[in-house]
Amino acid sequence: MADSISTENSGTLQRRGLLFILSSPSGAGKSTLARLLLKADDEIAMSVSVTTRQQRPGEEHGKDYYFVSGDEFEEMAADHAFLEYATVFGNRYATPAAPVQQSLEAGQDVLFDIDWQGTQQLYQRAGQDVVRVFILPPSLSQLRERLETRATDSPEIIDSRMQRATDEISHWDGYDYVLVNDDLDACFEKVKQILATERLRRARQTGLIGFVRDLMQQD
Amino acid sequence: MADSISTENSGTLQRRGLLFILSSPSGAGKSTLARLLLKADDEIAMSVSVTTRQQRPGEEHGKDYYFVSGDEFEEMAADHAFLEYATVFGNRYATPAAPVQQSLEAGQDVLFDIDWQGTQQLYQRAGQDVVRVFILPPSLSQLRERLETRATDSPEIIDSRMQRATDEISHWDGYDYVLVNDDLDACFEKVKQILATERLRRARQTGLIGFVRDLMQQD
Repeated sequence: MADSISTENSGTLQRRGLLFILSSPSGAGKSTLARLLLKADDEIAMSVSVTTRQQRPGEEHGKDYYFVSGDEFEEMAADHAFLEYATVFGNRYATPAAPVQQSLEAGQDVLFDIDWQGTQQLYQRAGQDVVRVFILPPSLSQLRERLETRATDSPEIIDSRMQRATDEISHWDGYDYVLVNDDLDACFEKVKQILATERLRRARQTGLIGFVRDLMQQD
Repeated sequence: MADSISTENSGTLQRRGLLFILSSPSGAGKSTLARLLLKADDEIAMSVSVTTRQQRPGEEHGKDYYFVSGDEFEEMAADHAFLEYATVFGNRYATPAAPVQQSLEAGQDVLFDIDWQGTQQLYQRAGQDVVRVFILPPSLSQLRERLETRATDSPEIIDSRMQRATDEISHWDGYDYVLVNDDLDACFEKVKQILATERLRRARQTGLIGFVRDLMQQD
């Protein structure tokens, strides 16, 4: 893999996975970028959330979501089993800590498509492992156009979505990287480049410890 | 430029420069990588040091070095005009702060080819602006071969250079990125990729502040 350090003597060095967060106002391209990334890169997988909402036909437990009851959810929250959680339209959603921890240790990255509040919670629990990327639209009029094109919603609902979008944008400075998505291909290249570079960080290249130890014992 | 954020509305956003440090034991390829980088990228320039050593024929004041007297050097050091300094074979060398500060503000990056001690000093003075990259040789025997090939030195001198090399390597964990240079082209690609990504960091994309302000005033 181009993203790992390979050496003549030691092959590819082991690394620790990372938590890759993509946030953006709805309509700025975050979901498209996430989908492209999952398709292009087999070292990263989407985080699977725990939810209290009803399982829908075609949804798979453990793949789309972990479906739990309200009581189970409360119990897990009390056990600090979640890295972040939120309530949307009365349903509860959370990121369970255990599978994420397993992925990190196995050198597998986890992708998160979450808002600024989820990002803050995740950063508080797992700061060292987190890479935060925020996607900005090139303009608000373009954002409004995208919301109008894809939705069959009333102007009032579109206005309230625009309100949520500007609220989300106002938290742009809580991120490590901020990209303007005025060209999807160029923006995707930057997302891939950020991920590749962050994998190279010394603190994540856990195999370096053994590599340097072996190096120093030669000669 | 591929490394800057460009947008339909605002063109290329302004950014703050960074201080890019390459360190390695002598013989691991650091100077070659620095030379390739300066040639490939016109947004980065070598740091010009202040020195008390004698000017040699062909050397240019302000380009190769700033040549100063011992007294001038002392005065500058007392004025905290240096980001880091060292004494080598009785001559003094230092990085002057003012031109580096100007480069950073102009969005120009500065390249440093310094050892772990200079890196520590620079990081203490300018941590936020610093990106530290350490280059490891694939093996010590290969390092010894390179020192033997290029030098006409006695075995004793080569041994003492190997001693200095292992001392330098022992500080590998004070760097943000550590690359194994077992293939020069592949290693150079990683160096360029790290530089491109670090330029994208939100804290360095100073133009984002104005971009987001303008964005929020639309609609």
